[in-house]
Amino acid sequence: MRALVLDTPHCLTLRTVPFTPEPGECKVRVLLAGICGTDLHLVDGYADFRGIPGHEFVGLVDSVSNPADREWIGRRVVGEINVGCGACAQCRAGIKEHCPKRTVVGIRGRSGAFAEYLSLPGANLHRVPDDVDNETAVFVEPVAAACRILEQAPLATNTRVGVLGDGRMGLIVAQVLRTVANLVTVIGRHERKLDVARALGFATTHVEHAEGDFDVVVDVTGRAEGLQQAVALARPRGTVVMKTTAHGAAPFASWPAVVHELTLTGSRCGPFAPAIAHLASGAVQVRPLIAHVAPLEGYERAFDVARSELKALLTIA
Amino acid sequence: MRALVLDTPHCLTLRTVPFTPEPGECKVRVLLAGICGTDLHLVDGYADFRGIPGHEFVGLVDSVSNPADREWIGRRVVGEINVGCGACAQCRAGIKEHCPKRTVVGIRGRSGAFAEYLSLPGANLHRVPDDVDNETAVFVEPVAAACRILEQAPLATNTRVGVLGDGRMGLIVAQVLRTVANLVTVIGRHERKLDVARALGFATTHVEHAEGDFDVVVDVTGRAEGLQQAVALARPRGTVVMKTTAHGAAPFASWPAVVHELTLTGSRCGPFAPAIAHLASGAVQVRPLIAHVAPLEGYERAFDVARSELKALLTIA
Repeated sequence: MRALVLDTPHCLTLRTVPFTPEPGECKVRVLLAGICGTDLHLVDGYADFRGIPGHEFVGLVDSVSNPADREWIGRRVVGEINVGCGACAQCRAGIKEHCPKRTVVGIRGRSGAFAEYLSLPGANLHRVPDDVDNETAVFVEPVAAACRILEQAPLATNTRVGVLGDGRMGLIVAQVLRTVANLVTVIGRHERKLDVARALGFATTHVEHAEGDFDVVVDVTGRAEGLQQAVALARPRGTVVMKTTAHGAAPFASWPAVVHELTLTGSRCGPFAPAIAHLASGAVQVRPLIAHVAPLEGYERAFDVARSELKALLTIA
Repeated sequence: MRALVLDTPHCLTLRTVPFTPEPGECKVRVLLAGICGTDLHLVDGYADFRGIPGHEFVGLVDSVSNPADREWIGRRVVGEINVGCGACAQCRAGIKEHCPKRTVVGIRGRSGAFAEYLSLPGANLHRVPDDVDNETAVFVEPVAAACRILEQAPLATNTRVGVLGDGRMGLIVAQVLRTVANLVTVIGRHERKLDVARALGFATTHVEHAEGDFDVVVDVTGRAEGLQQAVALARPRGTVVMKTTAHGAAPFASWPAVVHELTLTGSRCGPFAPAIAHLASGAVQVRPLIAHVAPLEGYERAFDVARSELKALLTIA
C-alpha cells in the first residue's frame, strides 16, 4: 500500500510498504486523515517515532480477523487510538490510554493513518452516523481530546474560560467548552485565526493584551512556553488545563502557580461518543477550520500548510 | 527595637529601628522565630522584599489597640501571616491569603518576626496550649502549610506518598501526611537528613534511585528544578503537590505531565488549628529538626546553618 513513512526526524517520504493487520484486529481502509500538531512534533523528533504517523482518520472496515467483529465489515468508522495490553491494572480499570505497554496509532509502536490501510481492534472502533460527512468525522479524535477537559476541569455556565492558542485545537477546545460554559475567550496572536474564532462567535483577545482572571485556562499553544503564559492568566485557585505535548523544555517559574495555588491538569485523549454527538448536532463546527485538502501525494504542501494555517486533510481513498 | 533588616538582596543587618503597631492591631513581643527556606530565598532576592523578614514565630501579646482584642493581652500566641483588605471577593469568601491587596508577615508589605516586636490583627492570632513549649510552637506556621495539603490532595490510608526533599519542610510534610496515609517515603540526597527521616520512622530513598509510581508526590525540594523530578515520580493520573516557591525558573518539559495526565497543585499557607493539634498530640515531632538555636545577634551563623542543615531558631526575648 502507499504510505507516508517517517524514517528519521524531518524525513517523511511517500512510498509503497507492505500491510498486514495485527492478529485479531480489523483492517480499515483510510478515506481521509487529518494532520495535527502532534504529527508536526513527531516529524520534528518528538517521542522518537519511526514509521507511519497519523491518528485522525475516518475509514471503511475492509475485513476482520476476529469473527466477533464481523458486524463491522463495510461500516464507516473512526477509531480510538490507544491499544492496551488488556491485562495490567490500568487496562483492567478501563484506562487503556495509560497502559504502560500501550501502542498508539501513529504515535507509539503502531502504524498510523497516513496510509491506505491501518489495523485496529474492533473494540476501538466507533460507527460514524450517516449524516456526518467524512470532512466532519475526521475531527472526532481531536474533538474527543477536547471532551476530556469536560471530565477534568470544574466547568459551569458562568465559568470564565480562557483558551490560550488560536490554532485548530484551540478552536475545537473553545467550541467544546462552550457546550457547558458561556464565557469562553480565545486568546491568540494570529489575526486570521482570531477572525475564525470571532466568526464562530467567540470573544477574542490578543495574547499581549490578555489579563489574568480566568477561572479555567487551557494551554493549547502547542509550545513549551505556553504553560507559563497560561499560569499568568488564571485567577488565584484557578485551573490550568495542559493540552500541549510539544517536544522539549522551556524555562518555567513554578512559584506563581504555588503562590496562587493553581491546579494544573494534564489532559490527553478523550471519549468518542460525546465527540461524535457534538459534531452530529453542529455544536462543534469544523468546516471553518479546514484550510487545505490534498491527496496523499500532496503531503509536503499539506504539512507546510498545517504549520502555519488551521487544518490540513489528506484524502487517501 | 532590635531587628534584622534586609535592605538589598544579600544585605541583612541587625540594628535598632522604630516600632509602632499598625492601627487596630496587636503588639506582639517575639519570643522565638524560625528561619525557613522562604527567608533564605528572600535574602537571595525573591519577591523583592525589603524590611524585616521572618514569619515563623511564637510570642506574647504585649498590648492591643482594639478593645475587642483585650482578652489577648498576656497570651502566648502564634499568628497566621496573611492580612487581607477585608473588602474584596477573596476576603469576603474567607480566603485572605489570596486577597490581591494582602500583606504577609515578613514576606510582603509587612514587617516580620526577626525583631523584638511585630504587629498583627487579633483575628490572626492563635493561643498556644500551655503544654506546647516555645521550641514546638514556633513550628506551627510550617506545620499549618503542610496541613494545607490534606485539604488539597486525594489522600487515603493506602495512598503511596513520595515526599521529594529531605529538608525541614520535607520532614514536616511527611509527618503531617502520615496522619492520613500509611505509606510515606522521604526521597532526598542528604544522608544526614535521611537519617533523621529514618529515625522518625519513614522509608527513605536516595533521589537517584527513586522510581516513579507514587500516587501523590510533594515537591519540597526548595529548588525550581524539583518540579520536573516530582513529575517523573508520579504514576499516571497521579498528583504532584507544588510546595516550592524558589526564586527563578528552571527548564521544564511539561509533556510528561500531559501524557500521564497528572494533576499539579500549588499549595501555600494552611490552617493553624490542626497544626497546633498535631504538635500538641506529638503526631508531628519537631525536636529532631532543630539544628541550631541562637540569639538575634548570632543571626549570621544561624542563616548559614539554615542553608545546609535543618531548622535554625532565633531566640529573641
